[in-house]
Amino acid sequence: MKLIDLKVHEFMTVLGSNEPAPGGGSAAALSATMGASLVKMVAELTKGKKKYVEFEELTHEVLVEATRLQDELLQSIDKDTEAFNEVSAVFSMPKETEEHKAARREAMQKALQGAAISPFNMMTLMVATLKVTEKAVGKSNVNAVSDLGVAALNLKAGLQGAWLNVLINLSGIKDETFVKTYREKGEALLTEGCTIADRVYEEVLKLV
Amino acid sequence: MKLIDLKVHEFMTVLGSNEPAPGGGSAAALSATMGASLVKMVAELTKGKKKYVEFEELTHEVLVEATRLQDELLQSIDKDTEAFNEVSAVFSMPKETEEHKAARREAMQKALQGAAISPFNMMTLMVATLKVTEKAVGKSNVNAVSDLGVAALNLKAGLQGAWLNVLINLSGIKDETFVKTYREKGEALLTEGCTIADRVYEEVLKLV
Repeated sequence: MKLIDLKVHEFMTVLGSNEPAPGGGSAAALSATMGASLVKMVAELTKGKKKYVEFEELTHEVLVEATRLQDELLQSIDKDTEAFNEVSAVFSMPKETEEHKAARREAMQKALQGAAISPFNMMTLMVATLKVTEKAVGKSNVNAVSDLGVAALNLKAGLQGAWLNVLINLSGIKDETFVKTYREKGEALLTEGCTIADRVYEEVLKLV
Repeated sequence: MKLIDLKVHEFMTVLGSNEPAPGGGSAAALSATMGASLVKMVAELTKGKKKYVEFEELTHEVLVEATRLQDELLQSIDKDTEAFNEVSAVFSMPKETEEHKAARREAMQKALQGAAISPFNMMTLMVATLKVTEKAVGKSNVNAVSDLGVAALNLKAGLQGAWLNVLINLSGIKDETFVKTYREKGEALLTEGCTIADRVYEEVLKLV
């Protein structure tokens, strides 16, 4: 059963249960999916409206990009829990002999790398969605301006949340080059995305 | 059909559609519900564990409070869309005579007040949940510390998002006392909650 096939209230029950997954990674992905969905909604409420005819091309672009990102972010809700489950699976590997232990260590490193890459990939999608959000500010249905603000807030929370999940997995990885690379790239995405999100929120505060 | 009875992917489709509701208000409530759910999960992963025996009473308290807030926030997802629908319903009221017009104006003011009170009530729940989140930081399962961080991020995004929805509805309300009261109370909740959320996030960043 995929998480995205659960009803909203069932998802919350599973999220709040004593199972470690789904956890913060999937929650961050879900926040960001709401962000992309709201951007899509605002474009839908803008397109074809006389008042915004000068932004018709931009609105179409926003709509296409937000729809694609909404779907990719939606898929990442389950991907993240799958990546976490790979880590959990290592705990049930045998540990009787030295070979077992070596195989376990290797499997754990591989699983942790997967569990760090998953939220990192989300971060890339989130920054892309924030860029699309910013394009729409001031150039879309003014009645839905608060929705663009909520989109930016959810994308920022998703981005920072995904980053915490990158960090917690990096903390167990021994490959220093891997750690350095993802830490640097992640920090850059975090800074870029938070800057856009804060700018959008400030802009929206002026418009509501 | 209640929103919380939709599957996660269906909710995103409805959120991203050209219907103005559900919009940012319900999305903010959903973010915060994830926050409360994650706090509950962390308490579940802490209770009964030897390592955290000294925090057993606190953990129980966190678990009870997070469970209650999770449910109240979950209900507010639908409540907000219902409040918005009351505003939409006014647009289909007759407007032929002066009496019609006066009745419309009055109904609109009442509906807008309801649509401002709904996200304001959420804000109260969100700040309460942030207080519970902070109680658990450093006193719960260390493997789930990033989940507490994601909880705080989602609650902050929910709080700021709800605030945008209070503001956009206040902007149409003529009763100055009402506007002043909710603006002041809302600003106080916003400041209080954001301060706690930022403190939790910084603390979690040190612990991951």
